[in-house]
Amino acid sequence: MAKTKQKKPQRPKAAPPRGFRDYFGPEVIHRQEMLRTITGIYHQYGFDPLESSAVETVEALGKFLPDVDRPNEGVFAWQDDDESWMALRYDLTAPLARVYAQHRNDLPTPYRRYAVGPVWRNEKPGPGRFRQFYQCDADTVGTPTVAADAEICAMLADVLEGVGIQRGDYIVRVNNRKVLNGVMEVAGLSGEDKEVERGIVLRAIDKLDRLGQDGVRALLGEGRKDASGDYTKGAGLGAEQTDIVMGFVGALRDSNAATCARLGELVGSSTIGLQGVQELERIAEMVEAQGYGPDRALIDPSVVRGLGYYTGPVYEAELTFEVLDEKGRPRQFGSVAGGGRYDDLVKRFTGQEVPATGVSIGVDRLLAALDNRLTRADEVAGPVIVTVMDRDRMADYQSMVAELRNAGIRAEVYLGNPKNFGNQLKYADTRNSPVAIIEGAQEKENGIVQIKDLALGARLAKEITSNEEWKQNAAQFEVSRADLVSEVRELLARAK
Amino acid sequence: MAKTKQKKPQRPKAAPPRGFRDYFGPEVIHRQEMLRTITGIYHQYGFDPLESSAVETVEALGKFLPDVDRPNEGVFAWQDDDESWMALRYDLTAPLARVYAQHRNDLPTPYRRYAVGPVWRNEKPGPGRFRQFYQCDADTVGTPTVAADAEICAMLADVLEGVGIQRGDYIVRVNNRKVLNGVMEVAGLSGEDKEVERGIVLRAIDKLDRLGQDGVRALLGEGRKDASGDYTKGAGLGAEQTDIVMGFVGALRDSNAATCARLGELVGSSTIGLQGVQELERIAEMVEAQGYGPDRALIDPSVVRGLGYYTGPVYEAELTFEVLDEKGRPRQFGSVAGGGRYDDLVKRFTGQEVPATGVSIGVDRLLAALDNRLTRADEVAGPVIVTVMDRDRMADYQSMVAELRNAGIRAEVYLGNPKNFGNQLKYADTRNSPVAIIEGAQEKENGIVQIKDLALGARLAKEITSNEEWKQNAAQFEVSRADLVSEVRELLARAK
Repeated sequence: MAKTKQKKPQRPKAAPPRGFRDYFGPEVIHRQEMLRTITGIYHQYGFDPLESSAVETVEALGKFLPDVDRPNEGVFAWQDDDESWMALRYDLTAPLARVYAQHRNDLPTPYRRYAVGPVWRNEKPGPGRFRQFYQCDADTVGTPTVAADAEICAMLADVLEGVGIQRGDYIVRVNNRKVLNGVMEVAGLSGEDKEVERGIVLRAIDKLDRLGQDGVRALLGEGRKDASGDYTKGAGLGAEQTDIVMGFVGALRDSNAATCARLGELVGSSTIGLQGVQELERIAEMVEAQGYGPDRALIDPSVVRGLGYYTGPVYEAELTFEVLDEKGRPRQFGSVAGGGRYDDLVKRFTGQEVPATGVSIGVDRLLAALDNRLTRADEVAGPVIVTVMDRDRMADYQSMVAELRNAGIRAEVYLGNPKNFGNQLKYADTRNSPVAIIEGAQEKENGIVQIKDLALGARLAKEITSNEEWKQNAAQFEVSRADLVSEVRELLARAK
Repeated sequence: MAKTKQKKPQRPKAAPPRGFRDYFGPEVIHRQEMLRTITGIYHQYGFDPLESSAVETVEALGKFLPDVDRPNEGVFAWQDDDESWMALRYDLTAPLARVYAQHRNDLPTPYRRYAVGPVWRNEKPGPGRFRQFYQCDADTVGTPTVAADAEICAMLADVLEGVGIQRGDYIVRVNNRKVLNGVMEVAGLSGEDKEVERGIVLRAIDKLDRLGQDGVRALLGEGRKDASGDYTKGAGLGAEQTDIVMGFVGALRDSNAATCARLGELVGSSTIGLQGVQELERIAEMVEAQGYGPDRALIDPSVVRGLGYYTGPVYEAELTFEVLDEKGRPRQFGSVAGGGRYDDLVKRFTGQEVPATGVSIGVDRLLAALDNRLTRADEVAGPVIVTVMDRDRMADYQSMVAELRNAGIRAEVYLGNPKNFGNQLKYADTRNSPVAIIEGAQEKENGIVQIKDLALGARLAKEITSNEEWKQNAAQFEVSRADLVSEVRELLARAK
């Protein structure tokens, strides 16, 4: 760190730090609405909200490396006055573990909680990759039953339909780490001396999406050279072992029962493997009993993301409709939420194993999907603008907006310099206002007001006619001052 | 900073950093509801939401001290990879200034924006004093008209009534820095050589609440020795000068017009003073025209908080009902929001003066007031609990909760170990559940379910009778399985 005295900066740069951004008007409102819907469904399922602080001790986050002065990359961390390290949370699960360990005697068991808020990552920002973003999680802590997993899968389907994704446009895929463990056992990879191989297998499987079957096979075997010529050493499995592992990720059949049967064959007599298969059968049975068929919740062993992290069932919600990628090629929209069971969540703090399962929704991904999918009929409308024709009559105009607002209509008086009327209309345009109200001296005297239908005006402006005057007038009409509220209300209703 | 290698910590402590806290269930819900109401009113007034990032560059926040390696106390700050300093925002106004300077060409003029979210202060925590707390602001940037100030005063009254403060229990007080400037001029304190004295006068006035008239008088004159014997040097004003300044803070009369007239006398021919008085007159006139009388919005020169910071009108919302302080003495609840006009907001970034005015609501203070004032009939009810009598029939119980939920009733199945039925009822109690549903083998066979009215049960348990069996049974009844939803709905409606 340079110890040299820095010069006093001339003027600060008006920009957020790199990797951070601001959200304006409709962006904030759309996200709020979506999160309100999601948390409403979580709440309806009996989950309670928890809001932990944005700042945690580095030791509670588990990111402390003992031999360095500074905690490792990945989190934003700094020292408190007493030299203890604190950091911004990087997800909502680590704080849940801390909160549960701290308050477990006062919390219900099991504890269903939801949380929503920003998290921070000290990573290299990129296009569409920010260092602050939202998560929206639901977790059930303190019960080992897969009924909790089934519940979260069903809830995830309800959430997606709740925010406006059509049935048929999404699927919740379910897999199980225990089945993979069984497969490893059968493939002779379960001994303590095989930890390195198992690690390579897990990492290889996790790359299925990116590398395809052949790439993963290479990594399971001798190794793989990528396009840049870099060589990654493989797990060194034989052909038969590789077939067993690849059989797992390719075990999807045309019904949940058939898939589970196939998985049963693969794991053979492995106890952990059979337990995993039974859990998947139970989950399928429970979601189906509630009416969530395999078109909505599907046992699918090709779901591999997170298999290295989770300890039991793993689930992922994917949107199946097509969008165009940056090169204009169609592709599936893909994952918007994922989760699973992680049974060593609280152990770091208390020494006791506490079973837990949960899901995290990628808020920005899901918002992007909705923007892509919905024609937003609910474009956030701007306020009605009461223009200022006579600056000494500001109190009158303010009373007019109060009247509109009291009738439930979003409205404001123009507060810029009223001299140039064109600027007032330009302002109304910037605000996406549907209606402007005009009351000059003449109107006041006659007990009327002019109503300008700005939405209609905008449409007419696009039409091809040379009759400019007609265009101007068609979108403006006068009404009695007493009818102001009812006329505006009617106009707004028509515009919808 | 110690460079010694630290030992690997045994187990992390399950606690947030000092000065931070967690919010659970009803606390989160009550705050959310209150903020939704407030931002709904802001929105109705034409304000648009803005959500800036929690992290800003230290230079944008204006907290950078050039001769130290570390930015000063007050903010949480750290260095990015490129050694630039970043910090958590300490309020919502500094980010607004940065955002407006950055995006001013794309934003409407004037720009009405609201913002809500946590802010962070690197201060010593104390009882009820946290290092992370919420603010909820509304500001109008880019217009000098006091119509914007009047609008915010009216909006503040609407907000307080909107969240449930009765008319008569609050007042929005308005003062003006320009009047004080005029008073200083008349008292001979306007020259450049009097800057030190003006500073002492501002700080002295700001302490009126705490020191009373005599204390402030002493600080305006020679100086003041406090209870601990510490001496504070005064501004050295003569008796006549002191009378003029004290006349200002005591200028409240029994009507806004009379107060303004009195202020007019005090500022004499001072141009800036007269301008300030006129601004107050205009504000009074505008809020009164909209129906906000002096019982709700009052010109009150004894409002001194923030006079040193703001450049024009200053406002403060106070709750006037009495509460008991920590020693059991009655006192007024006091301030819950404050704001004013600050015309040099954006200048740091652009060099141009941009007029702005706004208000910040103390979210936690207002929440505390509501908790104090309202008997929360709307206690957040827990979910209906479907108990588990037969763990193999989990899918049935889950279908039962799905049925309840689809009817709009918050419901969940018990996911703990179902062996001990008493634990299930204890869990329902922890969750504040109004109703528990029981369906054992017998009930299943007979096509019925048992409904346990837990709220009634709790009331009966408090009654003095030895007939324990009657108590048990009075709060439980059986209904046909087909009537489950309608019976539960009716019970919940009765409980309200």
